[in-house]
Amino acid sequence: MNLPTQPYKGARDFYPDDKRQQNYIFNILKSTVRSYGYEEYDAPMLESIDLYLAKSGKEIISDQTYSFVDRGGRAVAIRPEMTPSVSRMVAARRQQLAYPLRWFSLPNLWRYERPQRGRYREHWQLNVDLFGAGGINADLEIIVLASALLKAFNANDSMFMIKINHRKLLNIALLDYLKLEKKQSDSIIKLIDRRSKIEASEFIDQLDLILDTSQKQDLVSERLLELLDINDINNLPEFLKTQNETIELNELFNKLHDEGVTNFEFDISTVRGFDYYTGIVFEVLDNDPENNRSMMGGGRYDGLVGLFGVDPVDTVGFGLGDATLSNFLIGHNLMPPIKNDIDIYLAVIGNQHAASRSIAASLRKAGLNVAVNLDDKRIGDQIKTADKKGINYVLILGEKESASNKFTLRNLSTSEEQVLSIENIIELIK
Amino acid sequence: MNLPTQPYKGARDFYPDDKRQQNYIFNILKSTVRSYGYEEYDAPMLESIDLYLAKSGKEIISDQTYSFVDRGGRAVAIRPEMTPSVSRMVAARRQQLAYPLRWFSLPNLWRYERPQRGRYREHWQLNVDLFGAGGINADLEIIVLASALLKAFNANDSMFMIKINHRKLLNIALLDYLKLEKKQSDSIIKLIDRRSKIEASEFIDQLDLILDTSQKQDLVSERLLELLDINDINNLPEFLKTQNETIELNELFNKLHDEGVTNFEFDISTVRGFDYYTGIVFEVLDNDPENNRSMMGGGRYDGLVGLFGVDPVDTVGFGLGDATLSNFLIGHNLMPPIKNDIDIYLAVIGNQHAASRSIAASLRKAGLNVAVNLDDKRIGDQIKTADKKGINYVLILGEKESASNKFTLRNLSTSEEQVLSIENIIELIK
Repeated sequence: MNLPTQPYKGARDFYPDDKRQQNYIFNILKSTVRSYGYEEYDAPMLESIDLYLAKSGKEIISDQTYSFVDRGGRAVAIRPEMTPSVSRMVAARRQQLAYPLRWFSLPNLWRYERPQRGRYREHWQLNVDLFGAGGINADLEIIVLASALLKAFNANDSMFMIKINHRKLLNIALLDYLKLEKKQSDSIIKLIDRRSKIEASEFIDQLDLILDTSQKQDLVSERLLELLDINDINNLPEFLKTQNETIELNELFNKLHDEGVTNFEFDISTVRGFDYYTGIVFEVLDNDPENNRSMMGGGRYDGLVGLFGVDPVDTVGFGLGDATLSNFLIGHNLMPPIKNDIDIYLAVIGNQHAASRSIAASLRKAGLNVAVNLDDKRIGDQIKTADKKGINYVLILGEKESASNKFTLRNLSTSEEQVLSIENIIELIK
Repeated sequence: MNLPTQPYKGARDFYPDDKRQQNYIFNILKSTVRSYGYEEYDAPMLESIDLYLAKSGKEIISDQTYSFVDRGGRAVAIRPEMTPSVSRMVAARRQQLAYPLRWFSLPNLWRYERPQRGRYREHWQLNVDLFGAGGINADLEIIVLASALLKAFNANDSMFMIKINHRKLLNIALLDYLKLEKKQSDSIIKLIDRRSKIEASEFIDQLDLILDTSQKQDLVSERLLELLDINDINNLPEFLKTQNETIELNELFNKLHDEGVTNFEFDISTVRGFDYYTGIVFEVLDNDPENNRSMMGGGRYDGLVGLFGVDPVDTVGFGLGDATLSNFLIGHNLMPPIKNDIDIYLAVIGNQHAASRSIAASLRKAGLNVAVNLDDKRIGDQIKTADKKGINYVLILGEKESASNKFTLRNLSTSEEQVLSIENIIELIK
């Protein structure tokens, strides 16, 4: 019986062409966050399952996590997200670290779910976190950086929208303004989080199941729906407009404007799935309706590090998934063709293999990437191989060239040939 | 109950200092293999367990693999090695690819075992493979590249040793020269593979258990031990010296000399654990006895791609583990101090936060990495924070500086201060 050649369901193979595209995207992400002073960290791909049970929303741990018991009897999970790991690392060195920490990572994460457009079982997520900084300046930096990441790919403001909320303001709206019970409020928050994925009528049906008769008479449903549709913070009901959280949001919005970030809106229905947010929350959405999943999401979560028995650390951060970003870049024509990074294919005629190795060594010493032909294929076939690989230059080496130290360099995209010395070839290609 | 802050047993957290060192090492590895024309690929971290059952030595799959059944009932494994995945990928596009393929990857791999020096449950391994090229030129390139990788870290020949064998020559020695039964030969190959990890007396005891009385009378043990200690191919018994495999090895050795690789020796006891090698096999060992594990190992395995029901593809390649390499670099003083890649810490006096963001933006536009102070700490404390992070330059911004557009730049390693314009600062730091 032959082995199947497909990858594991919902996961992707990256052939060199795919990997080059991924590297292009990852390099821009990394250099942009580095320019804001963020430093890279990493953590193991397996963690004790307790780490996720303590922090994540229940949905994540029960259905979507890859968990198993290791050979030593430990219950472990393949990381479904990075935030618990990084919180653990900060807690472990709570006293020694120099705050604020600006940390980033680009891990692969796993979630067990039905594969679909923009969703894979294995995906990569840029995680950006600012530890040990409370206040608006930190929230501002994080949102400006989220926007800068897309602009680094030449995106403009019309291509994406940042939706911003304050997690506590939503609580106040549900508990104090609409006067719901805590249990009702929790159910409604979960329902709001699913709102974009379900029909409007289903949303209302579900809402009806949560509300009691007197609330229905008070038109709580209608007032909630009105609230969820507000995208100008100045249109909030007076009771909510005067809350500290609203004042804080207004200050943040003014500063975002000052920093040239204007493509955002207030959205009290932006919840973010996780239970652990304590302040601002935001999502970045592609304006292309074909790619309607959130590309980035984050906010302030000041309580997580404290779960490890150390003093809490003010924290704000976000995650950015590779699949929706890639759809965004392709959808808006922001993905340039990525060239093969092999500079030269060294074609060999006759018994010039030893000479080809010595020429390749000289070219490499000058910083060029060089692939050498190893067998005795016809020269035409060697050139075809280089072309199929997307390598632009072929250097042709036969007995004559070896003796004269002048080589034919063929540019495969223009079909031009030049006869050049090694020094000239290095100059030309660099 | 507080959550524990340690990582999963046998796995490592990478704080920014650690990650910078890892990035330093990985960048050199990647740029070196790229200079030889190798292209990066990647595959999912989970694979069907069948992939490993079909190919690996039994030991690997039974005791050391992280395997479990996913929520859909699929038996999967976290990859313990990359070779099965890459063979699967080549098989899937057997007809479309332009051979030879020069492919590399730098995946994290998992193995369940007792953590010890140079061995972790999660480790990274550079995998370098050349598909679709048989013959000595391909074997040569792979071994020269293995050597070039260490030389790229400024290692010299006296620091490491390459041991080379031909897997078929060992078979001939056991079956035809020592006239062992196939079953005995298989057991002895496994025993030889463990030889460096056990006492000499245990090796002989185990050998005695495998051999029968007549073989003992024929002094097969003694003859085997003599054979295993030969490290000059010319000292092989005549019967083995005239085999094609020996002639091939001699040709390879001559070419290695021509390429300037001289720190190798013939070693018929170099086996490599995996069953799938079909030609040359080699290991690269640190000459430092404190780091006595193999740093790299590989060889020719022409049969793997064919297991997927396509025509076989000639393949030669090797793997290099991060932990033993890191021990090698540290042991031979080849690991330089790695500086923080944040260029400037922007210290802010008084209400200059908005100004600090605009200055940071100018510096970033010029390609510098800039971290900005976000709160109202005393200037001395801000400088201490920068120092603790290992950032070399602090730019000091107060009301006066903001008005004059001249800023104090403090070099923390020399304690010198200069008053400079933004343009001058950019020039100085670049």
